[in-house]
Formats: sequence, C-alpha cells, structure tokens
Amino acid sequence: MVSAQNSLTVSSPALSPAQVRYELITLGDELLLGLTANGHLTFIGAQLGRRGALLNRNVTITDEADAIAVQFRESWSRADVVITTGGLGPTCDDRTREVIAEVLGQRLVFNEGIKRAIEERFARFGRKMTDNNLKQAYVFERGEVLPNANGTAPGLWVEQDGKVLVMLPGPPNELNPMFIDQVVPRLAARGCLLARAAYVQLRTAGIGESALETKLQPIFERAGPSLSVAFCAHQGAVDCRVSSPSGALTGSDLERIAGECAESLGDDFVVYGHDSLAVVCIEQLRRQGKTLAVVEIATGGLLTHAFNEGDGADKFFVGGLVGGSADAKRALGGVSAGLIHQHGAVSEAVALAMATGAAETLGADYVLAVTGFADVVETGGTAPSAAGKPVVAIFIALVSPAGAWAKPLSYPGPRSSVKVRAVNAALDWLRRELRRAPRAEVTPTPRIGAMS
Amino acid sequence: MVSAQNSLTVSSPALSPAQVRYELITLGDELLLGLTANGHLTFIGAQLGRRGALLNRNVTITDEADAIAVQFRESWSRADVVITTGGLGPTCDDRTREVIAEVLGQRLVFNEGIKRAIEERFARFGRKMTDNNLKQAYVFERGEVLPNANGTAPGLWVEQDGKVLVMLPGPPNELNPMFIDQVVPRLAARGCLLARAAYVQLRTAGIGESALETKLQPIFERAGPSLSVAFCAHQGAVDCRVSSPSGALTGSDLERIAGECAESLGDDFVVYGHDSLAVVCIEQLRRQGKTLAVVEIATGGLLTHAFNEGDGADKFFVGGLVGGSADAKRALGGVSAGLIHQHGAVSEAVALAMATGAAETLGADYVLAVTGFADVVETGGTAPSAAGKPVVAIFIALVSPAGAWAKPLSYPGPRSSVKVRAVNAALDWLRRELRRAPRAEVTPTPRIGAMS
Repeated sequence: MVSAQNSLTVSSPALSPAQVRYELITLGDELLLGLTANGHLTFIGAQLGRRGALLNRNVTITDEADAIAVQFRESWSRADVVITTGGLGPTCDDRTREVIAEVLGQRLVFNEGIKRAIEERFARFGRKMTDNNLKQAYVFERGEVLPNANGTAPGLWVEQDGKVLVMLPGPPNELNPMFIDQVVPRLAARGCLLARAAYVQLRTAGIGESALETKLQPIFERAGPSLSVAFCAHQGAVDCRVSSPSGALTGSDLERIAGECAESLGDDFVVYGHDSLAVVCIEQLRRQGKTLAVVEIATGGLLTHAFNEGDGADKFFVGGLVGGSADAKRALGGVSAGLIHQHGAVSEAVALAMATGAAETLGADYVLAVTGFADVVETGGTAPSAAGKPVVAIFIALVSPAGAWAKPLSYPGPRSSVKVRAVNAALDWLRRELRRAPRAEVTPTPRIGAMS
Repeated sequence: MVSAQNSLTVSSPALSPAQVRYELITLGDELLLGLTANGHLTFIGAQLGRRGALLNRNVTITDEADAIAVQFRESWSRADVVITTGGLGPTCDDRTREVIAEVLGQRLVFNEGIKRAIEERFARFGRKMTDNNLKQAYVFERGEVLPNANGTAPGLWVEQDGKVLVMLPGPPNELNPMFIDQVVPRLAARGCLLARAAYVQLRTAGIGESALETKLQPIFERAGPSLSVAFCAHQGAVDCRVSSPSGALTGSDLERIAGECAESLGDDFVVYGHDSLAVVCIEQLRRQGKTLAVVEIATGGLLTHAFNEGDGADKFFVGGLVGGSADAKRALGGVSAGLIHQHGAVSEAVALAMATGAAETLGADYVLAVTGFADVVETGGTAPSAAGKPVVAIFIALVSPAGAWAKPLSYPGPRSSVKVRAVNAALDWLRRELRRAPRAEVTPTPRIGAMS
C-alpha cells in the first residue's frame, strides 16, 4: 500500500515525452487464443501514461519467426521506442531474440555472467538445469542486460538508429519490477519519459462525471488553456487528471489547482493518486486504530476481496462473511427468522441486523453489510416496475462507533456491473463515515502524481 | 453454468478456418493508458479458437481518425476478416464509422429503424435523448446491421473486396452476446469458422504438464500424426486439447481419443470443456443435493469468490467466512484459544477445527478450509529452511459426510500465485471427494468441445 503522501514532484523536461512514439509488441499464441489476458498492455500503458507518454500502438502477434520479423521491422521503422514482451524463455518456440537480432544486423553473444546467474538460480531451487536454459544467456553484441531478480531470462536494452529497443520477459512478476526499477529510469534519463509524474490525479466518489465537470469548471477556466483535464469513470468513482502537456503550468501550479478542486469537492474528494476506496478506508482505520468486518449476501465476495488485494490490511480487516443462500443470513449475521419473515430477506431491517450481528460476532468497530438481489430490472432507477412499485434491489448497512444505519440502492445494468457499483457505494459510505470520525486526520496536502 | 453434457459435435467443413486471416483492431486511449484491460482480445480470441481459427494479429490504437485510417487500410489489405471494437458511440471522438467508410469508399446512410430503436431505449429508461445519439443510426450503404439488444450502438457487417468487416460496440455486455449470437453463425456460414467446435478439451487437475503428456503419449501415438495436441497450464490445473487441423480425424474420432485419455487419467480428469473446478463441484453438489461452505484465512476471499462467479450456485453454496486477522480464526471457525496456543495458528489441528466449526455454524454438508501464510519462502518444497525444518506455509482441510481431514501445502513463487494454487488444490480435493460420494454419477460421455 503506497500512501498518497509519498508522491513525487514534477520536473520541467527538455523534451516532451508526449511526442516520443512508443510501440509495444506483445508476443504469444496464448494471448491471441484468449487463454491469457494481455496484462502487459495494461501495466506498461499505465506506467508510460504516469510519466507523460502515450503508448501509440500495441500489436499482439504469434510466436512465429516470420510474424515477429515483419512486425518488428514495421514498428522499428515507425517508432522511437519499441518494447517487446515474451518470447525470451528457454523453449524452442522462444525465437524473439534471434529474429530481432537479425533484423537489427546484430550478433548474439554468450554472456558468462547470465549463465552463472541461471545456474545459481537452479541450484537454489534444488532443480537440475537443462541445456536449453543456456539460450537465455545470449545477448545483443551492442546492448545492455537488464538483470532479472525473479526469473532466468534477463531483459535486453538496445540503442541503435537513434531508437531504443527494450525486450522484457513475459511473466508479470518478472516484467513489472524490471520495468519500474530499470526501464523507467533509463527512459527518463534519455528524455523519453518525464523524470516525475505527468499529472495530478484526484479520485472522487459519489458524484457523476458531468456533475464533477460542472462543479470544477470555474477552477479550470481560471487556470486557462494550458491546463489539460481528463476524466475516467469507474462504476461509482470518477478520476480527474490535471496536466499541462505544453509545460506552461509547473508542477506546483498543478498541485495548487488540484488542491482547489479537492477543496471545492469536499467529501466527494477521495484521494490524490491511485489508491482504491478500500485502501483509503484501511489507511483511515490504521490511523484511528479501529477494525472493520464485512457481511455480504448479494455480491459474492467482491467486498471482502477489495480489502485483501493490498498487503498489510490484516490488522484492521477482521474478516468477511459471504453468504450464498438466504439461509446463510441467519447463520452469518445472527438475524432472527422473525425479522426476515416480517420485513423480507431483502430489507433495511435485515441489512441492519446483519451488520450489527456481525459487529458482535467478529468484534469489529466498523461493519459494512450488503444484502439483496443483484438481478436488477432496468427501470432507470425511479420508474415504476410492472407491479407499480419502485424496484429496490440492494440494501447496504453501516455500523460505526457512532451508530448504525441502512439504505437502499438501485442501479440499472447487468448483474456484474450492479455488484461492483453496490460494493463501491458501500466502500464510499464507510470512507465518509471514517472521515467524520473524531480522530481522522485532515485532508492531505495535494502532491503531484502519487505513483501508487 | 453450461454443463459439459450439452456440448457440440464437429462438422467437416469445406474450407479450413485455420487458413482464414483474422485481424482484430481494438480502439481506445483507455486501453493504451492501461485504464481498461483489453478484454475484447481475450473474448474474441477464445471464441475464434473454439471454432478452429487463430486470430493472426490484434492491434490497439488511439481513437484518432488518422491512426484509425492508417491501421484499417493496412489490416484490410492483409487480412480476410477484420474485426473492430469500440468507437461506435455518440460522442465526437467516436469517429471509427466515418473513417472506415471513407477507406472503403462507402457512403453512410441514415437508418430510420435504428433511430426508432435508440429513441425507444431512451424512453424505456426515462432519459432524454440528445441529438448526438442519432450518429449511431448511420450505417454503411452496402452493409448489414447487427442489432444491439443491450445498448444503443448497433454492430455493422460489411462484405467487400472478398473480405469481411465486422464492427462491434465496445461495452462487453453488448459485444459478447452480439458476437456469439450474430457474428459466429455468419462467419461459420461463410466457411470462416467451423460450424462446430474445433477441439475436445480435457481439463485435468493434480497432475503436472509433463507427467500428463507422458501418461497420454501412448494414446496420442496410436492416433497417429493427424492428431494435434496442445497443453495449457493454469496454477494446478492443466488443459489438454485434441484436434485435427487437417480434418483427417473426424469429430467422433476426437471424442473417442478424448474418452481414452479421460479413462487413463482416472480421478485427475476433471471435465470436458471449460467449466472451472468450482463449477464442476457445484454441479456435483447439485446432483447429490448437498451444500458447501468455505472458511479461508490466507487467501483473502479467492476461494469464496470462485463459487460466486457463475449463476445459480446460491442453493448449494451456503456461505464463506473470510478472515483477515488471526483473531478472526476463533470467531469465524469457533476455534478454541487453547488449540491455537498448543498447535500454532497455522497448523493441521487449527485448519481442521476451522472446517468442522464452520460446518456446524453454517450447517453445510461439505466444508473447505484454508489457513496459513501465503508468504512462502522459495525453497523448492522439500529443501530445509534456515531453521532446518521444511517450510510448510498453508494447511487445507476438508469436511465431508464421510469424515474430516487436513493436509499441508507448500508452493514456491509470488504470493498471488501461491494463493491461486492453494485455492485450486482445495477445490480439487473437494472435487475428488465429491466424485467418490455414493450418489455421484459416473464419468460423462466425452463430447467434442463444450462451448461453456
């Protein structure tokens, strides 16, 4: 969990990374057959974006030597920086290194240091190294090696024809740290990325994209035309990024503008940077020394899982009770059969009883509960259903040291999206309550581009 | 949940879809900035693969008109079928339709039927339609419309220059059913896809890829060189696909071969098709009329969530207890402090107590429990740790009507991957136990290519 407080400050680069043409070539039949999601695009695209560059193109092709040669030649002629992922492994279909060396007119040379690193890695795991692993010790004669702390295939860095080639191994636990620790600093040193974050991101919740834009418009107008603003909506949360592609506004200008936005938004402002609602809640719980539990019937573990994605939440997240069947409500939340009979299983009273029951069972200071049917009839929220009554699909409840409340939610859309919106609404409710608690700290100072 | 029993039978197509050149163009800065994962590639790649075609290339580019024109021209000159996703919406940066019409030398014409459908959709949601939505009513003068049941922008189908262009809207809940219901049958009717599934997939668990290959080798050898075999490993489960790209082996040949494989594998064979381990377990529970609950301390809701991805599991999945903190063990599983003190929180005894406690609390017939630290020291499984003892990181426990057991697990690798492997090991244990239960049905007859 990275706190927004440890954010970076913008530099004034000599070059504009926005003008650098980046292409990403992702290799592998498993991507084209839909067996694996293309996480490399998501990860690398986000990392470049945070430093002021937009990936121009991502091409996914098969492992075939001919296809690689054709595509690499094309990308190399068009782009300033070409990044490839995958195809560096030991098996015979990992031909990327050889094919690209041929296109670049370079020889591959055997590197004793890499050979030793591979042998040591195998020895450490008590496994026997097969000869095909030594393929990974061949590197470009005019290039550099990016050591791989988490696997056998190192990354490769080549500067040639006034361009940069970066070749990265496929497994994300190898690629991701290599990219952040080795590739980003090298690209920044060559002016292909900003040395610092490119934008300040304000994360908001509980306000729609157009209402957000309208509310912040006066601040944007005062800042003038060198300010660039981008919005991105995620099911109940909207991110707003302020940047200055021309460089006319400095990092501290952007921080000041973001600070004005946050102040204007009040409780709808969540955090600077990329921390999730759950991470923001855990951070508040940590400061206040309080604990949280959740009970969910309609959302299949989504709410619970939100608190388990980061590390270190264990101390403050006591536990989650996830109900599949209606019977589970009684067992999980200690809800009486009489209450369910009187109010119905999907009701404000039952949501409240689930939350207070769980607070007792799990001994938590705060509890979030979600109950209901996620199969919402699409009525636009307020239109009457066939039976003439508004469709209310989900109830959420919140227990805090200050009290206990429940409220209905209703969203149109497919089941999966309704679940995510309900979870985000519950998280946002908890966040607002935590913010009001006596020991909560004040709004943090805006800093540009938290890299979390 | 689609059962493997409802699978399809292979046809003998006149053309070979494997030779049709498919390209997919995915549009949008949100993909290149890493704000959204490229789910279109995963979905469309898998759908084509199941019908015997391999997507040759996927290119992701920005929404800019120039970039779209350049890329489309290139893909159109090279491929037989070009599929585009995104860029069909109402806003001014949705320029795909206009740009591609220009490249193809077609006019866009206004379609009254689409206009009415859009107006009706807005009326149904009680929202006011803005004029820019009418943009979506413009279609190619020589092309067909693919109606969109879940949104305003219809898909577009064009046949020109002996090629096929398919333009699809971006939202997955609109694209996915449109692709399955309208695009796949049209492509199959034109010989660009097989009319039926291309392969039989056997899903296995509890056996490694190389052991699997060795075990099945005699069957593959008897089948001869027209049999093509592909393996795909997923953290504790390995899929094996048998196909015959030349068409020399018929669908029933493939079914017979797959049946021999399944018989040879015994309990390591899970299912034909794509059902997950959790779905297979739920299907067995349904047949036996039994219920399941889970308790997990180390895996942050992953096990619980596995049972909530499909629909209709609610009757058989009673609930999940997900612990964050160590204290939660007592509360969730009813584990006594004395037991934890004596054996340690991560022990066989505590895993067993958690599972039996949850069986009582939740009244379930079967319970799976996972406890432990997922922060495994990489020792290769059996090597001694610094303290001279084997590192045992996780315990899983299983309660069934026949008894209760616990066992240790140990995996190398990063935390996220260890969690997935532990969850898969727990699911596979339950699956084997369910298979042994008196009322479990016999192995299903192999049918080619369950499309679930």
